[in-house]
Amino acid sequence: MIHDFIYDIPVRIYFGRDQLKNLGAELKRYGTRVLMTYGGGSIKKIGLYDRVVKEIRDAGLELFELSGIEPNPRIDSVRKGAQLCKENHIDVLLAVGGGSTIDATKIMAAGACVDHDPWDFLDIQKYAPIEKALPIISILTLSATGSEMDTAAVISNPETKDKLGRLDPAIRPKVSFLDPTNTFTVSAYQTACGAADIMSHIIEVYFNFDEEFYMLDCVMEGLMKTIIRYAPIAMREPDNYEARANLMWASSWAINGFILGGKRKAWSCHPMEHELSAIYDITHGLGLAILTPRWMEYCLDETRMSKYVQFGTNVFGIDPTLAPMEIARKSIEKLSDFLFNTLQLKRTFPEVGIDRTHFAVMARKAVNGGTLPGFKPLQQADVENIFEMCMK
Amino acid sequence: MIHDFIYDIPVRIYFGRDQLKNLGAELKRYGTRVLMTYGGGSIKKIGLYDRVVKEIRDAGLELFELSGIEPNPRIDSVRKGAQLCKENHIDVLLAVGGGSTIDATKIMAAGACVDHDPWDFLDIQKYAPIEKALPIISILTLSATGSEMDTAAVISNPETKDKLGRLDPAIRPKVSFLDPTNTFTVSAYQTACGAADIMSHIIEVYFNFDEEFYMLDCVMEGLMKTIIRYAPIAMREPDNYEARANLMWASSWAINGFILGGKRKAWSCHPMEHELSAIYDITHGLGLAILTPRWMEYCLDETRMSKYVQFGTNVFGIDPTLAPMEIARKSIEKLSDFLFNTLQLKRTFPEVGIDRTHFAVMARKAVNGGTLPGFKPLQQADVENIFEMCMK
Repeated sequence: MIHDFIYDIPVRIYFGRDQLKNLGAELKRYGTRVLMTYGGGSIKKIGLYDRVVKEIRDAGLELFELSGIEPNPRIDSVRKGAQLCKENHIDVLLAVGGGSTIDATKIMAAGACVDHDPWDFLDIQKYAPIEKALPIISILTLSATGSEMDTAAVISNPETKDKLGRLDPAIRPKVSFLDPTNTFTVSAYQTACGAADIMSHIIEVYFNFDEEFYMLDCVMEGLMKTIIRYAPIAMREPDNYEARANLMWASSWAINGFILGGKRKAWSCHPMEHELSAIYDITHGLGLAILTPRWMEYCLDETRMSKYVQFGTNVFGIDPTLAPMEIARKSIEKLSDFLFNTLQLKRTFPEVGIDRTHFAVMARKAVNGGTLPGFKPLQQADVENIFEMCMK
Repeated sequence: MIHDFIYDIPVRIYFGRDQLKNLGAELKRYGTRVLMTYGGGSIKKIGLYDRVVKEIRDAGLELFELSGIEPNPRIDSVRKGAQLCKENHIDVLLAVGGGSTIDATKIMAAGACVDHDPWDFLDIQKYAPIEKALPIISILTLSATGSEMDTAAVISNPETKDKLGRLDPAIRPKVSFLDPTNTFTVSAYQTACGAADIMSHIIEVYFNFDEEFYMLDCVMEGLMKTIIRYAPIAMREPDNYEARANLMWASSWAINGFILGGKRKAWSCHPMEHELSAIYDITHGLGLAILTPRWMEYCLDETRMSKYVQFGTNVFGIDPTLAPMEIARKSIEKLSDFLFNTLQLKRTFPEVGIDRTHFAVMARKAVNGGTLPGFKPLQQADVENIFEMCMK
């Protein structure tokens, strides 16, 4: 059965090489005082920083800055940003970077409108309402999280060892600039991690307990084929525009809400991975790459087999005349081959410095003390089993 | 090369069986005086009229009505609607119907804001600017034109025998209600015509002179597979929700702008078909069905072959090991088989009452006295040749 849903993705996207000329006008729609947020120095190295500052100055806007937003962005940066917004009466936030910068900026934008600690938006106990947020414009420099077009933010709290997410339409960017050339300097490794993240966003929806919406399954298969085709090209030829453009646009559509249709959002690998990167601070996409094939293996049984068959034949072109269970197993092999051979990502927990020390606590947090709903409902013991499968 | 583009589709869609409860609140966002537009009595027969009126009354809104909008909607209905809006100080238009009703309503919404004749928006010589338009909400009852989510309107002028289109973001609906059950009573024939229309919207973009954006080609292939799979099911089982839902959502995405990416909009079959239905008042989708395979045959040569091969293998599953030209020809056969056997649409001009009388004038108008750009540039003689191919 196809469930009722509301489709509402009002983000304006400027896609391409020559779009920043529109930045000033877009910012001006929201005011004159701009807080630009970014991470390390990479946007300065590629000249993007200078270009953005020039556009802002030419538009006669007042520029404030917050740099140093971490990968796996931390609540302290968010607190700092929210404070800056309040002190300087910021009208609009401009996030220049990847998902970490955009995610942090989203919670800053909400934090700027309240008196309480921004962590209250993430804290499972408090889950403070997001009644409004300052408008956000983003300039994307990494194809991965889809934050440029979605309603989500994931923030780490090193004190509590939590990494928690929040969804709210109020924090969705109003406008995003997607220039594939801004990703030309992304390393092969980060390109691979991004590709794994995008694949995971699609797999989490594709392998789901709700029945299919055929049209959206076709779209998901197309997006996955796009990642499989272009990620290795972008790794080999970092300035291949076609490859970067395909990865970039696919990253947005993997998670902006379109492919979800009426399915309930019941993800499995992301909640597990967030516990890994909360403690080990590994790259999100890498953690997902290690977990996903094991999770698929763990969930495979006669009742769920048909989805693997669909995946294997439509995405990887596995011979449909083979026995269904054979196709299903081969589809996991093909995905592993893509992640660990083609993308050259590390295959096991030990290779990325994760041992069994925190398995129990991570598993308990992943299922939030109960059951993680999804393609196959998982309890703490299930998650520990999946973690164990990642050890070799 | 992938061209720069702006993606901006801010339509909110309420998809599903139980969404009309949101109608009152959505209308109220725009005002209190509502002009409801519709065609014949079909919305009364299915109970939709009563349901809509009840929602409007319950919301305390003032209702005005304009019925009788024709298939291939005429400028006189548009003029009447624009006048009604002015006289009654209408705040928001509610189009309940298929593409004809929504298209007519779009030009009414623009016409309500100006003093000149609404035909001036369509007239190629005048092409009056659309500076603003009243807000439009639509409730869709036919999966075909995609008008519920796009910026286009096509209007007929029987006096001048013109059928002309206009694109403008100002006339895009703000909100559309897509309830597949509202299409349960659509006849097998109209379902088939709608499916042909949707296929054509995709084929016009897929077969294009600009280079490909692989991800979007994959999406288009998925949409076409969706139509091919579900149109015959909907014809056989008119109340099959899954089939109607897939057709409905695919109709929106075939033409809302997403699949276009940076490609230039250079359509071929639609301009030709508009000349047919301007004179013969045949159903738009039927005209497209007759024209499209002939146009594909006419354009096929060594330089354009690869696109047919991609189409044939990815959409129809033709054996990729065959010779490319053989695959290309088979892909046209497969499409013809779908249109004329599966959808049971008439195959030739004589079967729908078109003879050679107006070939020259229709061809000249289709190319607008010059060249129709597109997959293969067409001049008047080319269009006449394609028309001739439709005679048998």
